[in-house]
Amino acid sequence: MYTLYYAPGAASLAVHWLLIDLELPHTLVKLDIAAREHKTPEYLALNPSGVVPTLLVDGKPMCEAAAMAVLLAEAKPEAGLIPAPGSARRAEFLQWMFHLANSLQPPFRLWWYPQEAAGEAYAEAGKATAEARIHGVFANLDAHLGKNGPYLLGDAPCAADFMLVMLMRWSRNMPKTALDYPNLARLADLMKARPSWKALYESEGLSEWA
Amino acid sequence: MYTLYYAPGAASLAVHWLLIDLELPHTLVKLDIAAREHKTPEYLALNPSGVVPTLLVDGKPMCEAAAMAVLLAEAKPEAGLIPAPGSARRAEFLQWMFHLANSLQPPFRLWWYPQEAAGEAYAEAGKATAEARIHGVFANLDAHLGKNGPYLLGDAPCAADFMLVMLMRWSRNMPKTALDYPNLARLADLMKARPSWKALYESEGLSEWA
Ligand SMILES: N[C@@H](CCC(=O)N[C@@H](CS)C(=O)NCC(=O)O)C(=O)O
Ligand SMILES: N[C@@H](CCC(=O)N[C@@H](CS)C(=O)NCC(=O)O)C(=O)O
Repeated sequence: MYTLYYAPGAASLAVHWLLIDLELPHTLVKLDIAAREHKTPEYLALNPSGVVPTLLVDGKPMCEAAAMAVLLAEAKPEAGLIPAPGSARRAEFLQWMFHLANSLQPPFRLWWYPQEAAGEAYAEAGKATAEARIHGVFANLDAHLGKNGPYLLGDAPCAADFMLVMLMRWSRNMPKTALDYPNLARLADLMKARPSWKALYESEGLSEWA
Repeated sequence: MYTLYYAPGAASLAVHWLLIDLELPHTLVKLDIAAREHKTPEYLALNPSGVVPTLLVDGKPMCEAAAMAVLLAEAKPEAGLIPAPGSARRAEFLQWMFHLANSLQPPFRLWWYPQEAAGEAYAEAGKATAEARIHGVFANLDAHLGKNGPYLLGDAPCAADFMLVMLMRWSRNMPKTALDYPNLARLADLMKARPSWKALYESEGLSEWA
């Protein structure tokens, strides 16, 4: 059994989306970030970094959205969202999961929280630098998808595509967004056509970037 | 067969260390970062981000050090450096791998390349902020190891411990280093006692932080 601590549109989105897409039974606990519900002693006992999401797996807390995405895909291997260990596409799958977690999600974090780049005084410069780094990664991903897409692993989606579309969504208010890259836009169209996307939007009460 | 493109002490170190520790046959290609050998068209064709390491797996290039660490641990499950999918410690293993890749390696990257935080003009501020974030993560990890150690998963090492010790090593020239945290220091002692550590130092020609 899974319990997801989430906030609408946050890093929990890919995990929530996978829970729905994989039809895994789950309970949701909504956190109010503005009210700092993710910084209470109770929540910090589950998630020492005080960030969203946390996933309870049979009552045990787990952190890191990307780790949860892998765990959920593994829980239902027959859905085909993760290549099995030892299989041909395993290396590529791991590469994309860690690339998104290591090279794309961190500059997004700095774009949202630019004081974490070089302090409050230089937040504006931090935000601009983060945005430039994000576009560097988007450009490489778009080139990859152009040659090897439409999905990250080729002709079928994997858990990393759910992560990537979540991260693309975070660019929606930038002057240039992920959808300005043709192959990223094609990936978003394909992923948004999944019935689970609509269910996710309804559950989280989202409307932007539908 | 594995071929590792590495630079001494770089993000390739954990991968190289695991290749030795797991006794996986491999070939090494040393890159001279100062000579920008990681920015040649030939290397960029293997690793579009132009970073070290790259691992060739049966001739196919793979990026992201943490992804390589998982792949190698999976290649020799009998060594016990990765809990099997579905096993009790699987969620925790994935959590630590992604935590290191998402929350500790990125601020280290900014500490080494502080112009990537908020631009060249604010590099000093970027470096200071990165260092503070690194210590925030070290403190949480030290608390975890104090309660649940000596290794990240408890009484036996996993691939994430190799990653963590590599990242700890990168703090060696900070005013306060990873070894100033008692439980991190204990982990480093245990991991450095592996014969593979000495072999790694000899192979890469390292001496600092032996
Ligand atoms: N490494 C974490 C990062 C999650 C993260 O940065 N979450 C943001 C929301 S998208 C958050 O909790 N922000 C509130 C805060 O840090 O105070 C993960 O991937 O789960
Ligand atoms: N996400 C990459 C990052 C690797 C990385 O930052 N490598 C550094 C050396 S530790 C590098 O190649 N620096 C040279 C450069 O970026 O120009 C990975 O984990 O493999």
